[in-house]
Amino acid sequence: MLRILLINDTAKKVGRLKAALTEAGFEVIDESGLTIDLPARVETVRPDVILIDTESPSRDVLEQVVLVSRDQPRPIVMFTDEHDPDVMRQAIKSGVSAYIVEGIHAARLQPILDVAMARFESDQALRAQLQARDQQLAERKRIELAKGLLMKMRDCNEEQAYTLMRRQAMSRQQKLIQVAEQIIAMSELLGG
Amino acid sequence: MLRILLINDTAKKVGRLKAALTEAGFEVIDESGLTIDLPARVETVRPDVILIDTESPSRDVLEQVVLVSRDQPRPIVMFTDEHDPDVMRQAIKSGVSAYIVEGIHAARLQPILDVAMARFESDQALRAQLQARDQQLAERKRIELAKGLLMKMRDCNEEQAYTLMRRQAMSRQQKLIQVAEQIIAMSELLGG
Repeated sequence: MLRILLINDTAKKVGRLKAALTEAGFEVIDESGLTIDLPARVETVRPDVILIDTESPSRDVLEQVVLVSRDQPRPIVMFTDEHDPDVMRQAIKSGVSAYIVEGIHAARLQPILDVAMARFESDQALRAQLQARDQQLAERKRIELAKGLLMKMRDCNEEQAYTLMRRQAMSRQQKLIQVAEQIIAMSELLGG
Repeated sequence: MLRILLINDTAKKVGRLKAALTEAGFEVIDESGLTIDLPARVETVRPDVILIDTESPSRDVLEQVVLVSRDQPRPIVMFTDEHDPDVMRQAIKSGVSAYIVEGIHAARLQPILDVAMARFESDQALRAQLQARDQQLAERKRIELAKGLLMKMRDCNEEQAYTLMRRQAMSRQQKLIQVAEQIIAMSELLGG
């Protein structure tokens, strides 16, 4: 059963969504109002999905969405009356997996949640690829730096420096980047 | 006014969507059936959005979506009766910007299209970043290769080779990668 953290950011005391979700058989952990600290709440509740019911998403809500997306990513579904394309764009950029402008019908909740989760997975995969590339690039730069330092320290050419590094990595069962970081640290220690 | 390429992949002769779209004031270019060549059609029609109305997206349709997403990316909205989460996941992975399981109401089309377009922009930005990183990595490898070749050809050290390449790039107003490619080509010519 999906655990749903429901944020009711509407004027109505009882959110429009709560009844529909309960009717559709979800476990709803609800929390009213704008004023909560969403990242802290996600940390505590560990929901499968976050649902935000709002007449129009405020800047404060979107900032909280950005923080959650960065630190504890979850599928976030936003039900709203806000038709403004700029607000939509902002919400999606902040990390909202589904932005639904409409009334809420219990029968439609399941597919909406399923689509949001599929979308979330797909986004996460893309972001993970991007992060891996960033790391590859950063590691490559550090390895090149270490190779240059080693060439000076050992007075050897590029190939020899690279061979030394690879041999060290193999014999110590470390990654090349770890050997590179050791060389850089050592060079700093020696005042290189 | 949005130009919409409507693909009617349902059993019904007249798609469920056509009437709703026309009523909502969109320019609809419609094309029935599974059997079209979607990439070719997109190339000809140059729509702002592609709408696919389907009872359940077939593998053939999803393959065509993959091709369009790769070669002529467009926001793609899929209206369907298919609730299967695996199919959803497959559709989103293929490049569908919005996957809508429901009946169609004219009043809801505009926000659905707006959300799909915002989603599409956000995805494209992420993919562009990924592509830029891939290119950076590939260029870095080519530049390193060229530097090594130049070190042999000129019998110089790493720093000298890099300085030579940068100087050449500056004096010819080329990018470093272009100079690198010339060095690699020259080395091949010289049987390096």
